[in-house]
This record gives sequence, structure tokens and C-alpha cells, in this order.
Amino acid sequence: MSVDGDPLVARFRATWAELAGIGRDPATGGYLRYAWSPAELACRRWFVAQATGRGLAVRADGNGNLWGDWVPPGVDPTAPAVVTGSHFDSVPYGGGYDGPLGIVSALLAVDILREQGVVPARPVTVAAFVEEEGSRFGLACLGSRLLTGAVSPERALALADADGVTLAEAMRTAGADPAAVGPDPARLTRIGAFVELHVEQGRALVDLAAPVGVASMIWPHGRWRLEFTGVGDHAGTTRMADRRNPMLTCAHTVLAADAQARRLGGHATVGRVEVRPNATNAIPARVRAWLDARAADGSTLAALVDAVAADAATRAAADGTTVTVVGESDSPAVAFASTLTGRIRTAIEAAGPGPVPVLPTAAGHDAGVLAGHVPTAMIFVRNPTGVSHAPAEHATDDDCAAGVRALAAALAELAAR
Amino acid sequence: MSVDGDPLVARFRATWAELAGIGRDPATGGYLRYAWSPAELACRRWFVAQATGRGLAVRADGNGNLWGDWVPPGVDPTAPAVVTGSHFDSVPYGGGYDGPLGIVSALLAVDILREQGVVPARPVTVAAFVEEEGSRFGLACLGSRLLTGAVSPERALALADADGVTLAEAMRTAGADPAAVGPDPARLTRIGAFVELHVEQGRALVDLAAPVGVASMIWPHGRWRLEFTGVGDHAGTTRMADRRNPMLTCAHTVLAADAQARRLGGHATVGRVEVRPNATNAIPARVRAWLDARAADGSTLAALVDAVAADAATRAAADGTTVTVVGESDSPAVAFASTLTGRIRTAIEAAGPGPVPVLPTAAGHDAGVLAGHVPTAMIFVRNPTGVSHAPAEHATDDDCAAGVRALAAALAELAAR
Repeated sequence: MSVDGDPLVARFRATWAELAGIGRDPATGGYLRYAWSPAELACRRWFVAQATGRGLAVRADGNGNLWGDWVPPGVDPTAPAVVTGSHFDSVPYGGGYDGPLGIVSALLAVDILREQGVVPARPVTVAAFVEEEGSRFGLACLGSRLLTGAVSPERALALADADGVTLAEAMRTAGADPAAVGPDPARLTRIGAFVELHVEQGRALVDLAAPVGVASMIWPHGRWRLEFTGVGDHAGTTRMADRRNPMLTCAHTVLAADAQARRLGGHATVGRVEVRPNATNAIPARVRAWLDARAADGSTLAALVDAVAADAATRAAADGTTVTVVGESDSPAVAFASTLTGRIRTAIEAAGPGPVPVLPTAAGHDAGVLAGHVPTAMIFVRNPTGVSHAPAEHATDDDCAAGVRALAAALAELAAR
Repeated sequence: MSVDGDPLVARFRATWAELAGIGRDPATGGYLRYAWSPAELACRRWFVAQATGRGLAVRADGNGNLWGDWVPPGVDPTAPAVVTGSHFDSVPYGGGYDGPLGIVSALLAVDILREQGVVPARPVTVAAFVEEEGSRFGLACLGSRLLTGAVSPERALALADADGVTLAEAMRTAGADPAAVGPDPARLTRIGAFVELHVEQGRALVDLAAPVGVASMIWPHGRWRLEFTGVGDHAGTTRMADRRNPMLTCAHTVLAADAQARRLGGHATVGRVEVRPNATNAIPARVRAWLDARAADGSTLAALVDAVAADAATRAAADGTTVTVVGESDSPAVAFASTLTGRIRTAIEAAGPGPVPVLPTAAGHDAGVLAGHVPTAMIFVRNPTGVSHAPAEHATDDDCAAGVRALAAALAELAAR
């Protein structure tokens, strides 16, 4: 796919470079772009400048999501728009592509449509959602969940980050009004279709030798908080037989989650652990761990989580500890509308990059939340490492340009009538 | 042992209450008194006020340890002193007795000696050591190690806390001069004997129905940092077969440490874990864990640590991860001088609390560091819960008064000639 001197590759590279330094940890190359943090706010300011520079009318909704409307002359500004975009926030020390690639590609796709003289029959809107990763406040897709009413403003505003700062406080610090948070049916009515472009989080497109693909579905998935409670004591002096050590129960559960996922064909991970007091010479009094579990269907997912919880409870009884399992988020399976996906796939293939595979994904996205309300589709861009949520996450500039062209073709198709 | 109206019990209670609120977390009742933190500095100011109020000449040495000298008229102030004391710093959310009980008891023992008209033949000094727990800078008994030259000033000053603040910076913030840190042979020469009173960290005195005991030895013990490295990736999308997840290797090692300690008759604990990036939806790239291991003799300890390291390496090979084991501290067995221990045991029994058991302990203490340089002994006070390094750590006021009387008897014996 490499085209020497492709001006879109050069333009992508130049645009990408403007964002590349924001929130990047020089030591690891990972990004720290938490929602409402200075780094994410810098990305958002960059977005506002880019969108207004293109003549898009940019507004933030009450939840902090940004919307840049391109309303060509003669188009009804209140007609349901074709919306495309993603998010700026990252997991801690995450890659640079997960989220921002969808926003940068959306801006460049608008450029292409204009250069090609495409005049949409309805508004085309570029969107940037807030806290998609849930890395700061613990609830993924917070911006789209608030927009659609999938989470209440009361619950959302009370969510706190690791330093105890609530969403309400973080918004006030950033100059946003927490009182405006909540469902936005008027905005939702103005979304005629939503297309999210995203770096692939796996190697399917590598194996298929295709630069872009479209999504068939999102696996059902969720997050569960595991609370292991024991008796804090001196690590040196407490006899082994007298211990009620919740770290053991947690360790057993970490291994059980992995084993049960392999047995049942799902994915399960404990990637976050908090130990109290977390001192070398103290048996912990409490360990918190978070289970991320996913599967191709809801019944397998339920069986997986039940099996992990049962293993944890059995071990807790042996350790003299207790475990409680608290659901923190639950995302049912999302099947993207095959009609919409078929339309954009045909349009992308007609624009030239070759066959466009249709792939499921195990990752949640704002597109998955919106899919319950508006016709929604996703486009994936090949990731040579397959790695995501880590600095090795990558897409070549050539593939990113192919992604921009694919997105432009999809938008042209959806906005044509 | 309860004596209604025992004035020493009342005095202990009143003195103890002055310290009780400093650095206490109201939610858990645990203490957060990190070395050189505002809470520990408040304890130190309290000590200076208490000691100077008793006419002791208080000085801080270059390492921040405090020394309050009682030099009765006619006594050579340069003669080797009988020193007693302990530390103010705590483990995170630790109990209130580990450390402070030894200092408070020392001050009250001086009062008793004076009230009894005891005139020591040499100085009696009350000491407060810095960073005994190693909870802030990772190296236990830092103050006594620096004093004796067991750790170099260069290494110590570069030790950093969880926020990256070095000892040098923390000292400067507290108004102390890092340039003065280092071995202090002159001070060491002035210690004729050292007696540390400490709350028991176990239930031996409960089982023996004795309010106080003396120490025979300290188990050899140490801390090892375990670095588990894998490949950070997306928790949702990465196939189980493609993972190189260091959390699994760590979990296996946590369980192996416990199992090997039970098998070999030692103690092993992983009480501190740090995960990177520590995000719910990310397979960690790196997990750090700390192993605290102890045993009755050095060869058993070495076998225990070797067995844990071997189990970790085997599992790492299976997980596609790596593990490195880095020794952070190493405390050989300490046998307290039986002559000194015998003298103070006889003196304490003569003073009346009944038979005084002789106990080993698995916990490190400044007394263990000093024992390599000066005659050293320890007195333990009964702990009804047996718990230590946690808020349930306790001693009754009656037993604390018995501890003060025992310490006074020991000091009188050692200072008599």
C-alpha cells in the first residue's frame, strides 16, 4: 500500500505530530491522558482549533463531549448528521492510537470530502468523547453513557479517581459545569449514523493482509471489583498457621481468572490491584483487584465470571479471608447493524484498498454504547504489533492514510442522502 | 496485674494520650507516621519537649536520631551511657505501640528512677531512632544502620519514597542537613549498653501469662524485590494464548512464598505490590513485588528464598515473562548477649512481676543493628491480640506500666556501676 509521495500520508504525519507530544511519558513512550487532565484538555484545545480552522461549528455538550458540525450551504443544520469520531483519553502508559486516530482521521476525512467536491446532503459531525477508557473514574465510555442515559448524572458525578477527586470536581477544575451533566436526547436525535474509526486491537488484519476492516460485533464484557479482606498483621512475626492473608486469596483468583478464561474460551484479566497497607513487612488487611472479563456471548461470559467468583470463594474459605464481587460495569453484546456495515464496506471497497474484512472485537467503544440508539459502524486500521493499551500499539502512516480514505468513503456514502 | 489506682498506670495513660492523635487515620485507627513526615516530626517535637522538661540534654545526631542525656551530678558526661529507646515511625496504617511504647516507657522509667532516688553511676540516655520500619525509604533500621556504618550515606541519601522524594530531600524539607549523614563512631563509643523495650509481636507472653519478657535472639531476615516483566497489552482483545502476563507470574510467586515458608518452617510474605500500568483493561507490562522472608537460622532462610526464586523462574518461563530477584536488605541472626540479658532478667524478676520468659523474635529492631557494636538487650510487653503492624496491635495500660517498671529495674542494674 505504500505510495511514495502520497500527499495524504505526509498530511497525516504532520497532523499526527502535533498531538504526539501531549501527555507522553518520555521514559516509556506511553501516554497519560486521563479524562479532564491537563494533557487531555490540551488535546481538546487542539481539536477545537483544528475543527474551527476547518469552519466546523464546535460545541461541547453538557457532558464534555465535543461536536464539530460541518453544515454545507443549503443543508438543514437540524437534520440528523453523519457523526464520526472517537476519544482522546488513554489508559495509563497507553498507546497513542487508541482514540486519537479516530479523531485525526475524521478531520482529515472531512478535508478529503471537500477536496473531492463531495457535498453532503446532511451535516457531517466530528466528535470527541470524554473518558472512553474509564481509566480515571472507573467507568468506561462515560461520555457516551451519559449522553444516552446509560448512567445517571448522580452516579457519574460521584465517581472518584485514585486521588479521591470526583468527576464533578474534575469538571469544575477544568471550567466545566457539573450541573449540565446528563442525558441529551436532543443531541442523540441529531445523530443520523455514527462511524468510529479505531486502530485494531489484535492481529486479524495483519493475518489477512488488509489495511482496514469493519466491525461485525463487540463481545459482551464487564468489570468486576474483587474485595479480599483478611487480618493485617506483622509479616515477620505472625506464624504461618495464624495468618488470614487476603493477598493469597487474590493471587489464587488472578490465576483462576486466567485458567477459567482459557477453559471457557473467553478473556479474563486482573490488571489492577490495590493493597492495603502495601508495606513490605505487613500482611495486608485488604486487597482490591479488578476483573476484566469478556466472551463471544453473554452466557459464556456469565459462566466465566461465576467460575472465577466460585474459585475465589473456595480459596477465601481456606485462607480464612472473605471475598466480595461487585459489578462495576456491564456491556452486553453489540451487533452492529449489518445494513449500515454492508453499505460502508461496499463504499470502502469501491474506493480501492482491496477486500475489507468483517471482524468482531472484544474491546468496548463509544460506538458500542451508541449502537443501542442510532445506526452505528466501526472501521479498524491494521496494527502491525497487535498490541494495544501499551506503547507498542501502532499503525503505519500508510495504513492510517488508507483508514482516512476508507472513512471518507463511508461518510460520503452515508451523507449522500 | 491490675492495681486499682496505680499512679504509674494513670501517668502512662496520660502520657500516651498526648501522642495518640498524631498521624492517626480516623477511619481505620491505623497510624501513618512515615520518617521525616509532618506526623513523625510532631512526635519528635513532643519528645524534645518531654525530654527537656525532665532536664535531659537533647541533641539530634547527623542522621536525625535524637538523644536525651540524663547526667546526674558528679557523673562523667563522656562515660559510656546506658541507652534506651525505640522509634516513632510506623508502617502505613500500623499500630500505635510498635516503637513509641519504647520511647514513652523510657521517659517514664527515668521518672521512676528519680522518684526512687536511684543515682546512676553513668549517664542514662533516651533515644529515638529514625525510619526503623523502612516504610518510607525501603530500608529498615535506617537510623541505626547509618549510625553504625551498616549503610553508606551515599546509598541512604539516594533512597526515594513512593513519590520519588529522596532521603536527602526529605531531610532538607524537615530542616536537617543531609551532609551530616553518616557513621558516628564517637556516639557509638558513648553507648555502654542499649536496652529497647517493645510491644510483643506475637502471643508468646499471652500463652505464658507474663506481662513482660526478654529477647534471646532475632531471626535472620531480609527483603527482596521481585521484578516481573512481560508485555503490556489490551486486556479485552489479546488472545489468552498470545499473552505474556507478569501478573500471573507474580500471583504464582505469592502463593509459592507462602507454601515454601510452611514447608521449611520459616515466614515468607508478599505484602507490597506495584503494578504498571495498573489499569483494569490492560495486561500489565511489569509487576513489582517485595518478599519479606525470615527463619530461625541463616541456612533455612537462604533455602527459603532460593526455593521461592526457583518457583518464580519456573513459572516465568511458562508465562513468557521474566523475573529478577534483587536483595534490598539482609539482616543476619542476632543473638543478644546472654550475660546482659541474664542481668536485666534477674533485676526485673527481683522487682516483682513474676517469672520473665526469654523469647526469640522474628522482627528486626534497631537493637538488632546495635547488637553488633554494643551490649544490647530487649524487653517485650505482652500484646493481647498478638497483632502487630496493624491497628489491632495493643498492650493494656497495666502491662505498659509493668513494662516501665521492668525497664526501670533494668536501667538501674546496668547504670549501677
